[in-house]
Amino acid sequence: MKNYRKELWFDVPTRRAFINITPEVEQCLRESGIQEGLVLVNAMHITASVFINDDESGLHYDYEQWLERIAPHAPVDQYRHNVGEDNADAHMKRQVMGREVVVAITQGRLDFGTWEQIFYGEFDGRRRKRALVKIIGE
Amino acid sequence: MKNYRKELWFDVPTRRAFINITPEVEQCLRESGIQEGLVLVNAMHITASVFINDDESGLHYDYEQWLERIAPHAPVDQYRHNVGEDNADAHMKRQVMGREVVVAITQGRLDFGTWEQIFYGEFDGRRRKRALVKIIGE
Amino acid sequence: MKNYRKELWFDVPTRRAFINITPEVEQCLRESGIQEGLVLVNAMHITASVFINDDESGLHYDYEQWLERIAPHAPVDQYRHNVGEDNADAHMKRQVMGREVVVAITQGRLDFGTWEQIFYGEFDGRRRKRALVKIIGE
Repeated sequence: MKNYRKELWFDVPTRRAFINITPEVEQCLRESGIQEGLVLVNAMHITASVFINDDESGLHYDYEQWLERIAPHAPVDQYRHNVGEDNADAHMKRQVMGREVVVAITQGRLDFGTWEQIFYGEFDGRRRKRALVKIIGE
Repeated sequence: MKNYRKELWFDVPTRRAFINITPEVEQCLRESGIQEGLVLVNAMHITASVFINDDESGLHYDYEQWLERIAPHAPVDQYRHNVGEDNADAHMKRQVMGREVVVAITQGRLDFGTWEQIFYGEFDGRRRKRALVKIIGE
Repeated sequence: MKNYRKELWFDVPTRRAFINITPEVEQCLRESGIQEGLVLVNAMHITASVFINDDESGLHYDYEQWLERIAPHAPVDQYRHNVGEDNADAHMKRQVMGREVVVAITQGRLDFGTWEQIFYGEFDGRRRKRALVKIIGE
């Protein structure tokens, strides 16, 4: 069994953003030389997500509005977590969108449907944060 | 390390449905001959889910009502994604219910609690769509 | 490829609770002797979650309030599942928080960011329930 590990780093200048990291994960897969197996991609922070969906700007705007509606940022004092913090909502948004994805590797490629793309979802940015890519297989 | 791959195809006549795919995944596991490992089952579409819960029609009705409440289909023009589309809500419902499940394989069987069953959750049906079963182990 | 399996048992005296199981998962990892691979931790019940987030009591209070707002327990007769049951909301809360986590193992340790901790999330307690730890790798 082979294994491969790499951290992907981000420094998002805004509080929230969705970044397509599919090319970086594909590069990891090439470096790993693994033909058959699984790749795990996860946020290493608890106010960020890794998820799979469409690379379409209208949808990303809709996600932003929708997440704000079901887990609003303000007023920040509605949350007990916000003592010296203002990111309680980010912990909720991250649960809705998920921490991680597991993707099949088949014949050396991400085994994806037509529109599947991997995103890093930032909900509390403006500092350096990272995601982990771990691949096992052979 | 052994590996196995199969696509499961669906042609749901309605916009939304929950389909129990546990027997199909068990069949894949038998075909793989894998005794110890992990199985990944994921939707290959971004408006569908694979999730684990109860095979109970009342609960499925409740899920349908609940998802419609937190991510309503109509009015369709509330979403920027809906330009020539009407499925933005399906992209949200799929995030709540999840893209994939990873299940342990122990002694050649899905290592499940009493009530765990695997479902394909369709949120934008009326066309041919598919899920992926990938098994690794030995 | 090595593999390891253990069930973690809980008997939560209240309906809902969040329990940090990171030490138990780390103990499993030590027992497995696996240095590189993946660990799957999943609830074996469909009204409970395993998720990764912060071990902070204010946040856990916020999660409780938030989940109650988006998937309320009462009135119980709003759900068709609640025929001889009162736990339909628990099936929804579990979908928001997730069934499982997959964590990378690197050099014999959980490959975690600074604040990542694994929780068992109970939404229908007051009885014995369990989570599964399955590790594969070498």
